Amino acid sequence: MTQNRKACLLSAATLLAAAALSPATRAGESNLRRWTLEDVLLVPDVNEIALSEGGRFALYAAEAADSEAKRTRARLHIVDLKASTQREILSADIAKSLRRIPGSEDWSALLDTGDGVQLYRIDKNGGVEPLLINRDTVPVGKADMSLAIGGGASPHRIGILDYSWSPDGKWLWYAQLKQRSSPARVRFDAEVIPLRNRRRSSIEADVEIFLRGPDGSTTPIVVRPSSDRMALHAAGKVVWKGDEVIFRLEAPDGTPGSLFETRAWNRRQGQMRTLSSERDVQSLAMVRGPDGGALGTSGTGPTLELAETSSDGTRRSFGRFGFTVGDSRAAGYAASSDGRRVVVGTRMLGNPRYGLAVIEANRVREIAIEGSLTNCDFGEKLVQAICVAEGMAQPPRIVRVALETGRITPIVPVSARHEEIAPLDARPRSWINRNGHRLTGFTIMPRDYHPGERYPAILITHGSDADERFADAANQWNYPAQLFAERGYVVLLVNDPSPHQSAELRAAYAAWGRGSGPPDPAEVRRLIWLDGVQGFEDIVKQLADEGLVDSARVGIAGYSRGSQMVNVAISQTGAFRAASSGDGGYLEPAGYMAAAASYNPVYGGAPLSDDFKSYRSFAPSLNADKICTPHLQQVAAASPTQIELFEALHSAGVPSQISFYPGASAASDETHIFYIPGNRLLAMRENIAWFDYWLLGKRDPAMPFRDRLAEWDRMAKSAPERCARREGKP
Amino acid sequence: MTQNRKACLLSAATLLAAAALSPATRAGESNLRRWTLEDVLLVPDVNEIALSEGGRFALYAAEAADSEAKRTRARLHIVDLKASTQREILSADIAKSLRRIPGSEDWSALLDTGDGVQLYRIDKNGGVEPLLINRDTVPVGKADMSLAIGGGASPHRIGILDYSWSPDGKWLWYAQLKQRSSPARVRFDAEVIPLRNRRRSSIEADVEIFLRGPDGSTTPIVVRPSSDRMALHAAGKVVWKGDEVIFRLEAPDGTPGSLFETRAWNRRQGQMRTLSSERDVQSLAMVRGPDGGALGTSGTGPTLELAETSSDGTRRSFGRFGFTVGDSRAAGYAASSDGRRVVVGTRMLGNPRYGLAVIEANRVREIAIEGSLTNCDFGEKLVQAICVAEGMAQPPRIVRVALETGRITPIVPVSARHEEIAPLDARPRSWINRNGHRLTGFTIMPRDYHPGERYPAILITHGSDADERFADAANQWNYPAQLFAERGYVVLLVNDPSPHQSAELRAAYAAWGRGSGPPDPAEVRRLIWLDGVQGFEDIVKQLADEGLVDSARVGIAGYSRGSQMVNVAISQTGAFRAASSGDGGYLEPAGYMAAAASYNPVYGGAPLSDDFKSYRSFAPSLNADKICTPHLQQVAAASPTQIELFEALHSAGVPSQISFYPGASAASDETHIFYIPGNRLLAMRENIAWFDYWLLGKRDPAMPFRDRLAEWDRMAKSAPERCARREGKP
Repeated sequence: MTQNRKACLLSAATLLAAAALSPATRAGESNLRRWTLEDVLLVPDVNEIALSEGGRFALYAAEAADSEAKRTRARLHIVDLKASTQREILSADIAKSLRRIPGSEDWSALLDTGDGVQLYRIDKNGGVEPLLINRDTVPVGKADMSLAIGGGASPHRIGILDYSWSPDGKWLWYAQLKQRSSPARVRFDAEVIPLRNRRRSSIEADVEIFLRGPDGSTTPIVVRPSSDRMALHAAGKVVWKGDEVIFRLEAPDGTPGSLFETRAWNRRQGQMRTLSSERDVQSLAMVRGPDGGALGTSGTGPTLELAETSSDGTRRSFGRFGFTVGDSRAAGYAASSDGRRVVVGTRMLGNPRYGLAVIEANRVREIAIEGSLTNCDFGEKLVQAICVAEGMAQPPRIVRVALETGRITPIVPVSARHEEIAPLDARPRSWINRNGHRLTGFTIMPRDYHPGERYPAILITHGSDADERFADAANQWNYPAQLFAERGYVVLLVNDPSPHQSAELRAAYAAWGRGSGPPDPAEVRRLIWLDGVQGFEDIVKQLADEGLVDSARVGIAGYSRGSQMVNVAISQTGAFRAASSGDGGYLEPAGYMAAAASYNPVYGGAPLSDDFKSYRSFAPSLNADKICTPHLQQVAAASPTQIELFEALHSAGVPSQISFYPGASAASDETHIFYIPGNRLLAMRENIAWFDYWLLGKRDPAMPFRDRLAEWDRMAKSAPERCARREGKP
Repeated sequence: MTQNRKACLLSAATLLAAAALSPATRAGESNLRRWTLEDVLLVPDVNEIALSEGGRFALYAAEAADSEAKRTRARLHIVDLKASTQREILSADIAKSLRRIPGSEDWSALLDTGDGVQLYRIDKNGGVEPLLINRDTVPVGKADMSLAIGGGASPHRIGILDYSWSPDGKWLWYAQLKQRSSPARVRFDAEVIPLRNRRRSSIEADVEIFLRGPDGSTTPIVVRPSSDRMALHAAGKVVWKGDEVIFRLEAPDGTPGSLFETRAWNRRQGQMRTLSSERDVQSLAMVRGPDGGALGTSGTGPTLELAETSSDGTRRSFGRFGFTVGDSRAAGYAASSDGRRVVVGTRMLGNPRYGLAVIEANRVREIAIEGSLTNCDFGEKLVQAICVAEGMAQPPRIVRVALETGRITPIVPVSARHEEIAPLDARPRSWINRNGHRLTGFTIMPRDYHPGERYPAILITHGSDADERFADAANQWNYPAQLFAERGYVVLLVNDPSPHQSAELRAAYAAWGRGSGPPDPAEVRRLIWLDGVQGFEDIVKQLADEGLVDSARVGIAGYSRGSQMVNVAISQTGAFRAASSGDGGYLEPAGYMAAAASYNPVYGGAPLSDDFKSYRSFAPSLNADKICTPHLQQVAAASPTQIELFEALHSAGVPSQISFYPGASAASDETHIFYIPGNRLLAMRENIAWFDYWLLGKRDPAMPFRDRLAEWDRMAKSAPERCARREGKP
């Protein structure tokens, strides 16, 4: 297969030059430039990296918006670690599961180059050849006649789902999707209930798992329905142990925590056995300690206990550390061939960063940098790693990590474009709220900050994603934090109070996940929403007290989990003068039908029941008459809850807008995190205009939907009497 | 175009032989046979008939299930009225708008023969040629990426939407659909709200209206959005008056009654003018009296006043008659070329039948037969008509009607198959309920009825559709009334109390249609649902008192409007021991989101408001704890309300099943009245098994879903204690 191999050589020199600049450097003091909206749009996400056997080369994929392709595209690069050079070898709609092929210098990868996601072989010269092609692809994503696979997948087709090489590279474990050719059939009762929430047509499919042997023969191992989330999302996350391949399946038993089985396939005897069953699996990956047991952290406080639990229940503690393991955002996991040495990606408590921990016998060695190591692959002997290093204000760069010493050697930058930008002044902060809970986050100072001046501020929140990653879309969504700072706002990126700090927070989150208390619903609401919202209020007050923020000009923005906090914030406090709530709606009564198990611990039961009083007191749409904050919803698929909230605000006279961002056509939806570059640009510009209008009283000339301004004027004029009275009392 | 012209010659002799048999004839007394399920499935619907110029021939289309095509198909026949013979000339997925072409011996028709609905010319020898083909067809129906056009349309494609010939046959007025090639665009606020109820993807389209002149040139007249219901459903219903073509458009003003404009296009001057605007249009057809004014009936009671209202408001009464005009089920409408003589289809008050009224000057002459004239076309001079005659127990036949004398001459039968069946004993009945309101309907006696014996009974209800039509699917849906009678049930086909009989009923229906009272919601609920349900109870009691019905073995069935009555009946009375509720769900709280204007007059407002108490007292799902009647729902698209009711019944321990009947694939839905023969057969068999099980304690060997029986056993065993107590107290 010949591909466009546009050479893209960026020397380490450029990188080092940029790295030498202090983050406080002002634009005027160098030839670096300011952020543009395109820069935010084009921030790359390097979620895949793989060393070659021997460690001379690395292959990585940087995913970023491609305006021409009208979608996110992945650009594959091969890095020469010795020469500190790289070149782009290929771009694809999707590139993932980059892995070296043991016993060769090549890599394999799942790529979608137009024929659906298939397995390819990539050599160090950039040659790309098909390795396993399943022509019978299955359409997935939020689109007509597709399989909904969750995880925010954009509409695409899957041939090969996942795979794993045996340690000698001779056996290939792989999974593919197979559409059920189900003739239309009559369905009854429990099978009909899910149709209540149908928003599009869908198909049914199975996950088929195979093992290909050294002789090229293929053995079918198991066929699972696509409702088996472990098979669907982690079919390639297996452990090769002697003659056995250890893998996991979901065998739902109706509990919210579900039931998961660990099984072993003996490839010599062709036999399967079930090793164990467990509930409440926290991670798709099997993170194992040096004894082969499950590795995890437990407890609460500034440090957690790291321990390994063997299948017989024996527990071995490594001591207390300031990190968690198993976080899906962490850098990865590897074990030596004998399993005795383990490297695991960590997420630091305190201001969240990602690092590594090397575990051997009873010894745990932490590797951390100023920012984060967000993605790593490890050499066979676990001596060196190749990683992506990035931070809140540092664009992603490929670095070498010596696992013995922890020494970091920069290799190449990922994005020349972003190296040209003068870093903003992003400061990790943490605050204690009135309830004694800590909230972590960052302040990004206005580009031309003058000490002593008060600035308008925008608080952006999304669960725990305010961490040391570079302008990450999973955190800041369509809220262009960097542009806000360039335009004179203080930007506050704030996390929810971490449940790791307190047993009561942890218990509340556990109840929410489990589908039932204790604690009771009022406590769940207090700990998961009100506590954080009070934290946001307290932060604004502290920063106003510090003289940094003008408390009369503070806005709040957040999508998904963040949208919950935004909606609760405006219905429970008067601290914010403008709000942007992204693709949310959770907590509104109309959501009960689609998420009863998740609503029950929050409200006690259904809205049309005796539990209505809980909804009445807390659901934002049912408290619209208390809200004064102008409220923008930018949404992907226009769920009933989002419209319920819009209508309630509209009826109550609250300035309110819902903006629906469409999919590529009416046959598919925009994804939860927008994948269509045009939509992202419009949504970012709409947010800028929205906050400029309501916080600063400015009419942004770059406002993308000009005729909305008249509508905003109308809404501002007809805002309720009660709100006029509240003005000046944040 | 050459078509399969299977000759199908049925002489009038056969017809007359069958017609001579009294409806009370027993199967054993002749060589006629009993009903089979296939007979019910294959009942033809003759909804299109057209005389040729001169009146020698007629073209008609009989629509019936086609198991091979897996859909309803229309078979076109040409009848030689002189010879009383017919032959089938063509079958098509759809055949409608059959009309003679003035100035020729040919007809035109909209046919879907595989290329979407297009306009064809049909000659008296059965030759079929394309007349107007729009290749740019638009998909319609409840299917992905289709235009929802309502009216229970099965998924198909439309090229030509409707048409009309000028009186001289030289001008052709026609409408076509045009899909909007709208690029995905951001939508705001009011445009987002409808997405709340999205169940499938959809497209947007316009209705384009054209006029083709004698020289073949085509003039675009107007382009309307498909939300203009008049343009979408009645673009061909125009009046040619001098140089003007008079047509109507909907210009919605936000009121439930909407606003409709009557316009005139001057084909000589090429100019448009607006003649008038009106609200609350009751009929798509323009039914006009001899003075060119709107013809209608008004008042309440056993007779209504027939009057013509001119555009200047002048009203001219023709007196009081026992019928209504303008009913979409009535036989048709025609006016003489000078407009002074009018023939209009009537629907009789009392036990509903369909006839004709000839109106000339101040004279009104009624034409009625024992059954109904359900579809007619009229000769140019309005001297003779060709009609479909049918009745509750009489299969449809083509007859000639002399409009002067009212004499009926049988020509040919429509369905040889149904002429072979010994008619069941179907007796028109009417009953007065406890509130003094009359309910009309029919009893169908068990085939082997023995006077003095008590029989189990099934009451089937669907608004006002229990009338003199032959086993009409719009009335009996998937409830095979004839099979029930063959199996030993008394079948009661019962209408709601007619609103024509009382001002309070009429006011309640008006409030429901208008979206607001008076009367108040409690009165609306009493008059539109409780009054009828009490009527059903009273009927059962009367028939039990007569010794005909065993009141401990009475079931109730109804779809759509009927399902409302079924659901209210089981939640408000104990009269029924089994229920089958077809594709309904209206009245349940979850329906508010999609139909607020229709719910407001019933409940006062939204469920999550102070009006909740109305829902609590009346919505069947919120009264599940009062219900004991086993409840089957057979549904087409599985709406949220249907599932809400199922879940409530299930939670309350009431034996309850929801059976979802799928579309041809997941990309489309089964229609409200099922169009897929396989589904209809299964649903009818399921209903037989359901009533046999719960009313008779029998396990039907022909039960189509055998493993449900175990489920029914389980439900029967675990029925609530309170219901066991109620047994024996209907």
